[in-house]
Amino acid sequence: MSPQEAAAEITAKKDIEALPASGVWTPILMPVDENYAIDIGRFLEHANAILERGCHGLAIFGTTSEANSFSVNERKALVEAAFEGGISPQQVMIGTGCCALTDSVDLTRHAVSLGCRKVLVLPPFYYKNMSDAGLFRSYAELIERVGDPGLRIFLYHFPQLSGVPISYRLIELLLKDFPSVVAGIKDSSGDWNNTAGLLQRFPDFAVFPGSETYMLQGLRSGGAGCITATANANAGAIRRVYDAWRQSDDTTDTLNERIVAVRTAIANYPLVPALKFLASKFYHDPTWRSVLPPMMPLSDADGADLLKRLESVGFNRA
Amino acid sequence: MSPQEAAAEITAKKDIEALPASGVWTPILMPVDENYAIDIGRFLEHANAILERGCHGLAIFGTTSEANSFSVNERKALVEAAFEGGISPQQVMIGTGCCALTDSVDLTRHAVSLGCRKVLVLPPFYYKNMSDAGLFRSYAELIERVGDPGLRIFLYHFPQLSGVPISYRLIELLLKDFPSVVAGIKDSSGDWNNTAGLLQRFPDFAVFPGSETYMLQGLRSGGAGCITATANANAGAIRRVYDAWRQSDDTTDTLNERIVAVRTAIANYPLVPALKFLASKFYHDPTWRSVLPPMMPLSDADGADLLKRLESVGFNRA
Repeated sequence: MSPQEAAAEITAKKDIEALPASGVWTPILMPVDENYAIDIGRFLEHANAILERGCHGLAIFGTTSEANSFSVNERKALVEAAFEGGISPQQVMIGTGCCALTDSVDLTRHAVSLGCRKVLVLPPFYYKNMSDAGLFRSYAELIERVGDPGLRIFLYHFPQLSGVPISYRLIELLLKDFPSVVAGIKDSSGDWNNTAGLLQRFPDFAVFPGSETYMLQGLRSGGAGCITATANANAGAIRRVYDAWRQSDDTTDTLNERIVAVRTAIANYPLVPALKFLASKFYHDPTWRSVLPPMMPLSDADGADLLKRLESVGFNRA
Repeated sequence: MSPQEAAAEITAKKDIEALPASGVWTPILMPVDENYAIDIGRFLEHANAILERGCHGLAIFGTTSEANSFSVNERKALVEAAFEGGISPQQVMIGTGCCALTDSVDLTRHAVSLGCRKVLVLPPFYYKNMSDAGLFRSYAELIERVGDPGLRIFLYHFPQLSGVPISYRLIELLLKDFPSVVAGIKDSSGDWNNTAGLLQRFPDFAVFPGSETYMLQGLRSGGAGCITATANANAGAIRRVYDAWRQSDDTTDTLNERIVAVRTAIANYPLVPALKFLASKFYHDPTWRSVLPPMMPLSDADGADLLKRLESVGFNRA
């Protein structure tokens, strides 16, 4: 590491603490029963297991939670049950971005009313090729209708699924009018160049790569940590990389290689079915494999192959 | 026309009458006030104007109705108000396909409970690259949960917006298990080759091109008519082409050229903002221009240019 890099790293470390969210966040899997109804008991067991392993927080109702496969009422009921079950609203970021503005407003107001002011907001994702002015209007209407200066919005950039990228220009427009409310971004593009551009252009922004693959590289450039689906399976090890980096520990890069290898092994399969398959192993509960349509559960053969791949990279959940 | 073509045309004409829906259908624009609340009075005025001009039916809450920009409750309220306002449930096809199975079931049950059994169903459109088995499961669960043998589902193929194409294989799977319920498809791909393939493979299916551009070509190959956004502006002329074809009138192709020219003129602009702009002219009501985020209303300059283009192709709403 060059002296410049070391200096940059220290600055980055300082900045992170001032951000409204930072560290290792898990977009949590949503366990359902055979009728696709959310199972709060298994949810709480899993949420507590992840937090005990060191995750800084949970993103509830992102892509990994199959958010868009649940109705607004199902989503609100789970959030209420989570907080009643002891999950702290401060440790949570709730996905509230829907195609319908009225739904996004409803879910965001609901989160705020329960004391959770951090929300992860997809752009409306049915219509494609919308202008930045139109997308700005979606976010601006949401912010104005909710009307809470304490709200902290994390933009959700996942162009492969939403089909609606969040451009630098859109972020500039939003930061100009809502500099404290629009607080960060989850960059699930998997495109490091896009993440690097965000880090360079928006130094005060909480930029989360959407995978641990780029967590360390991000941290070293001023990133906020990561929000990563695979933390459902590997939270402890990912947290250890984060801590090693914070402590400038010599083991950082070696530990990082291991979590990236685990991520790579899991990413051979559709992520949500694969992670639910792993949850079914962790909890000895085959119902955990259930995914909502249009997904399909991981097949037995793929599951066996996944376990072999994980064994070959020395994966250990502990 | 060759004798074979003439024979095929007669067969097609016979088939159309046996289909659960056929003819010229309008996916109706949804007027909103300055807060994006649906205006039922203006909706009914427009719905009646379209039906008076000869449309066979209305598709309520497709892409042109900005369906996905409204909540489930907003959608149910409009449908109830439409029927209370005198629109016949038999003349309507309701868009009920959402990302969440529970929402699709809710909206479809609601339609059926009001006597409307024709529904236009998008596949769940957030997750991409889903398997045919997974998409089959989405439709099968919907059909089984609604549990009404009188239900008639029209699949909604609009890959440019949904990102989730409906393959021939998926249709085969659905027709095998639900031969009477799965009744047809709106092919909004704009790809004549796809429409032609549907007509060839599924001769008993109600195949609607998603635009009048391919209505006549479709009718001549056994198509069911068309479900076209531009019928919001040009319903009467499109109906006249349909009637001319039914009567094997010599004017058919000439009339068809004119409606295609009008379609082409409008399609220079984003379709929904352009059609709402035209509605604002028809009804002398600037509020009609309002579109929901993330769309933007047509600019004054584009509106003026659109009117000029329409004048140049001899457009006349009458």
